[in-house]
Amino acid sequence: MRNRTFGLASLSGIAAVGIICFGVTAVQAQQPATPKPADLQKHKTTPGGQYSPSLDVLGEKPAEQPGTRPGDPQLTKAEFDRASRIYFERCAGCHGVLRKGATGKPLTPDLTKKLGFEYLRDFITYGSPGGMPNWGSSGELQQVDVELMARYLLNEPAAPPEFGMKEMKETWKVIVPVAQRPTRKMNKLDIDNLFAVTLRDAGEVALIDGNTKKIELILKTGYAVHISRMSASGRYLYTVGRDAKLNLVDLWMDPPQTVAELKVGTEARSVETSKFKGFEDKYAIAGLYWPPQFVLMDGATLEPIKVVSTRGMTYDTQEYHPEPRVASILASHYNPEFVVNVKETGQILVVNYKDLDNLKVTSIAAERFLHDGGFDKSGRYFLVAANARHRIAIVDTKESKLVGVVDSGGQTPHPGRGANLTHPKFGPVWATSHLGDETISFIGTDPEKNKQNAWKVVQKVEGQGGGSLFIKTHPKSENLYVDTPLNPDAEISASVAVFKIKDLANEKPAYKVLPIGQWSGISEGARRVVQGEFNKDGTEIWFSVWNNKAQDSAIVVVDDKTLQLKAVIKDRRLVTPTGKFNVYNTRNDVY
Amino acid sequence: MRNRTFGLASLSGIAAVGIICFGVTAVQAQQPATPKPADLQKHKTTPGGQYSPSLDVLGEKPAEQPGTRPGDPQLTKAEFDRASRIYFERCAGCHGVLRKGATGKPLTPDLTKKLGFEYLRDFITYGSPGGMPNWGSSGELQQVDVELMARYLLNEPAAPPEFGMKEMKETWKVIVPVAQRPTRKMNKLDIDNLFAVTLRDAGEVALIDGNTKKIELILKTGYAVHISRMSASGRYLYTVGRDAKLNLVDLWMDPPQTVAELKVGTEARSVETSKFKGFEDKYAIAGLYWPPQFVLMDGATLEPIKVVSTRGMTYDTQEYHPEPRVASILASHYNPEFVVNVKETGQILVVNYKDLDNLKVTSIAAERFLHDGGFDKSGRYFLVAANARHRIAIVDTKESKLVGVVDSGGQTPHPGRGANLTHPKFGPVWATSHLGDETISFIGTDPEKNKQNAWKVVQKVEGQGGGSLFIKTHPKSENLYVDTPLNPDAEISASVAVFKIKDLANEKPAYKVLPIGQWSGISEGARRVVQGEFNKDGTEIWFSVWNNKAQDSAIVVVDDKTLQLKAVIKDRRLVTPTGKFNVYNTRNDVY
Repeated sequence: MRNRTFGLASLSGIAAVGIICFGVTAVQAQQPATPKPADLQKHKTTPGGQYSPSLDVLGEKPAEQPGTRPGDPQLTKAEFDRASRIYFERCAGCHGVLRKGATGKPLTPDLTKKLGFEYLRDFITYGSPGGMPNWGSSGELQQVDVELMARYLLNEPAAPPEFGMKEMKETWKVIVPVAQRPTRKMNKLDIDNLFAVTLRDAGEVALIDGNTKKIELILKTGYAVHISRMSASGRYLYTVGRDAKLNLVDLWMDPPQTVAELKVGTEARSVETSKFKGFEDKYAIAGLYWPPQFVLMDGATLEPIKVVSTRGMTYDTQEYHPEPRVASILASHYNPEFVVNVKETGQILVVNYKDLDNLKVTSIAAERFLHDGGFDKSGRYFLVAANARHRIAIVDTKESKLVGVVDSGGQTPHPGRGANLTHPKFGPVWATSHLGDETISFIGTDPEKNKQNAWKVVQKVEGQGGGSLFIKTHPKSENLYVDTPLNPDAEISASVAVFKIKDLANEKPAYKVLPIGQWSGISEGARRVVQGEFNKDGTEIWFSVWNNKAQDSAIVVVDDKTLQLKAVIKDRRLVTPTGKFNVYNTRNDVY
Repeated sequence: MRNRTFGLASLSGIAAVGIICFGVTAVQAQQPATPKPADLQKHKTTPGGQYSPSLDVLGEKPAEQPGTRPGDPQLTKAEFDRASRIYFERCAGCHGVLRKGATGKPLTPDLTKKLGFEYLRDFITYGSPGGMPNWGSSGELQQVDVELMARYLLNEPAAPPEFGMKEMKETWKVIVPVAQRPTRKMNKLDIDNLFAVTLRDAGEVALIDGNTKKIELILKTGYAVHISRMSASGRYLYTVGRDAKLNLVDLWMDPPQTVAELKVGTEARSVETSKFKGFEDKYAIAGLYWPPQFVLMDGATLEPIKVVSTRGMTYDTQEYHPEPRVASILASHYNPEFVVNVKETGQILVVNYKDLDNLKVTSIAAERFLHDGGFDKSGRYFLVAANARHRIAIVDTKESKLVGVVDSGGQTPHPGRGANLTHPKFGPVWATSHLGDETISFIGTDPEKNKQNAWKVVQKVEGQGGGSLFIKTHPKSENLYVDTPLNPDAEISASVAVFKIKDLANEKPAYKVLPIGQWSGISEGARRVVQGEFNKDGTEIWFSVWNNKAQDSAIVVVDDKTLQLKAVIKDRRLVTPTGKFNVYNTRNDVY
């Protein structure tokens, strides 16, 4: 239980490259109000990958530094475009596309001009203990780009473009029309046990056979695929890049192939597919960070059908928010509905897809900073983290209404989809770990047979430390796995804690540490271990051992019964693997 | 049938003062693309009331004229504020608060700078045949203000403020708490036959006894009350000013009194109250032009409960619209729902008020430029004009879905709430007149017993001419009244056409002209006759004879059986009377 209190100082190393989750952004909400540039020098810096911009600067030289209290420093068009690109790739996730602040601080010129050029330059260079990455001293940005960004921030934000039906239609490609697709599975793949693995920095997804551990295929996708989802039948795979590019992959083809593409905006995080009886494979939905909207599409072609803006009022103060971003989305099994979680307003939108011309949306006033979550064991209740508020909102998807909002018991819950298990003392529970501390919380989810425990934190246990992103178990497993990839301690971030579910009967259950990073055989880099994912049968769990793009990464497979190393998947094509999505478990919401 | 083709040239006289409806704005959609200032001089100008700004200009003199192609002419703070005020009062209705254009043209600096100062000045002075009022030559604006506005338009638009829960709560006043209000009617008024009459330019509403024709009370309200609505019980009267000020009047008190006030934004047009069984008098709703939103309130106190933004996508091209204004709202009798018509997006929002924490809104893709409308005879179907699209959208409020959208058969339908009657050949129909031509259209509304006629224009007849705002009948009346207050012909605008319903069996039914203006005994001014409103029993119909603020106005009461003059209500307090709302007919949707 070393480093139980989660120091954020060296979070920046991994936050800098924006691993998987937007959860890390939440941490910044706690950063001190005005750290002084002088203080920043004290913090350790970690070397990171070099930022290699793909933009052509056309040989223009950046203008002179405008000094500490400039007016509006002039940027050339190429500089402005380059800075906008860097801003979008590195800053917008926390500070908002409009720079109005999100979980990071606002960066509008009225504020940045008070801080001045030198302060901004130093802050970008050295970061802050509150979670701001040390872009300069880590080597992620060159000095010239750090200074460019400081000047950029003194200017008015670039007006990000709207992206409506016309723009979407212009990007829409059906590569293989439905009529030309097979009517049955043409390949020999065990689709149900396939893993779709995000290769973050490569802009690719690897399809890995769960039985042979062989990489069957590498698919070109959007940049830094945030998630993959499978259609109800299991035939179609949907991926969404951070750049809002969607790919639809037909897993029946030999080999599987991208059959349609669509760009739905500038920045996105979520995609889902209709699962209600009678609507299997019929619709897809994507949620956007920018523009703030979601899009309903034809499930077989990605043809955009309906665009709905999420701009609107915060649930509590009821003031207008210009940029309410769509976090997770999931498909209800009880109604023909998608559950759309809107971050800044704290509204959960239940979108009924039965009649798109008369579109019914229920806005559930929940809690701000909605992020990620999953169903309870029954599939009826949805539990979602309001991360910067340290709370969990619970929705009854049968009645399409809020059950309640509870404190998670820790700092900045980050459940992924959470973990469902039958607790030896409290019955069915859903578990989450935390980004901000070592707490693992268990919430009762059975209002019928265990009413006294329902929708309460029934137990809190201590894991290795903070910096956890994902917690995982399986109905057939007796173990609960907790990763800690963002923990500042190298040993903790390269290992996983495993609790025996039966041990949860103890007040302070012990856990076993699996040295996954070490098992990978990789000796270089941070070897951050992230996101356990079970195979179809629930007999083994896969972890990504994540390194920078220039370094080796791997996937380590652990035997769930023995907790011994079973296999290491290493391949030069396995660049920066992050999220892994087992087809069967993903489409059936098994977690 | 004189002047059947509606010339718009002198519409400006009345449009300038913005009588009742925003329908007049629709006409501008047809204005020619680039009328030349030189041409404008040809059009007749009519003298109008002097514009008397209440703003203090603090002795500052407007700056020099910036020439025909200026950069950004500098305005002093006081000039900018004064121009913003004039813009809001006179221009925003057509051109949009953000100057992005609505039914009037966009006036953003990129466009206005191409036109230049002189063009703008002349255009504002002389108006256009497309519907732009001749602000200068009519005397409505002094030359110095015309020039101020021309300079103002060359600058970036003022950012209109948001108006959320905090701002609303700051304006909320409960003057008489519920506990201190009477528990039964304390006065001797025949509330059901009371008329609430908007005194537009006075910022007042007169309560007139329908039996004695006596002005019982003058209530201070918002500016230019657009409509009055009565609660389901008939006890409460709600008024909404153009300035988004709401008044709640308790008609049980002796005398009736404003018991609560609330400002819900900067510009508003609509208010309604919950009528579904079990929710009588429980909620009120107001629709805003700016900010683009609607607000649900407690029916007895106006306490704001829920603010909902209407910003979102157009129904057809699905592009984001920043300023979708709320036009009419009505309360369903079949469901606990309000039907909210959003102008620019063409979305009809069905807002279910059963559970405000889990607010269900159905967005019906209908048609752009939704305006005003009313129920069919059964109270189940709602027919609403999409005025600039010359169409009528029909909603089934039982099923909360679109029935269809039909061409109205004329130019720019303006039904008010329309008129329901049993047609001698086609059965139950709903009728609308038009702003843009002389057409009166009848749409079949009985899908059960007259299915072949349902939701079709079954007949079109010719009235006196264009410029009609309201059409009226009553279940007990055998007549159909059509006003033409915006017709350029003085005799037509001062009179009303009456059709015998039984005569509609003829192909070209004749009508009788009632010279209401002449009957009023007023000899000065335009004496525009507007908005027939029946008394409770349906035995008489009231018309406003509308003149400028400085001139005499009146209300003329006509006997429905004999079509003879029954009474003239004249009073020095009866300043610019426009809409009249009979309590019984309004709360029971009798029209």
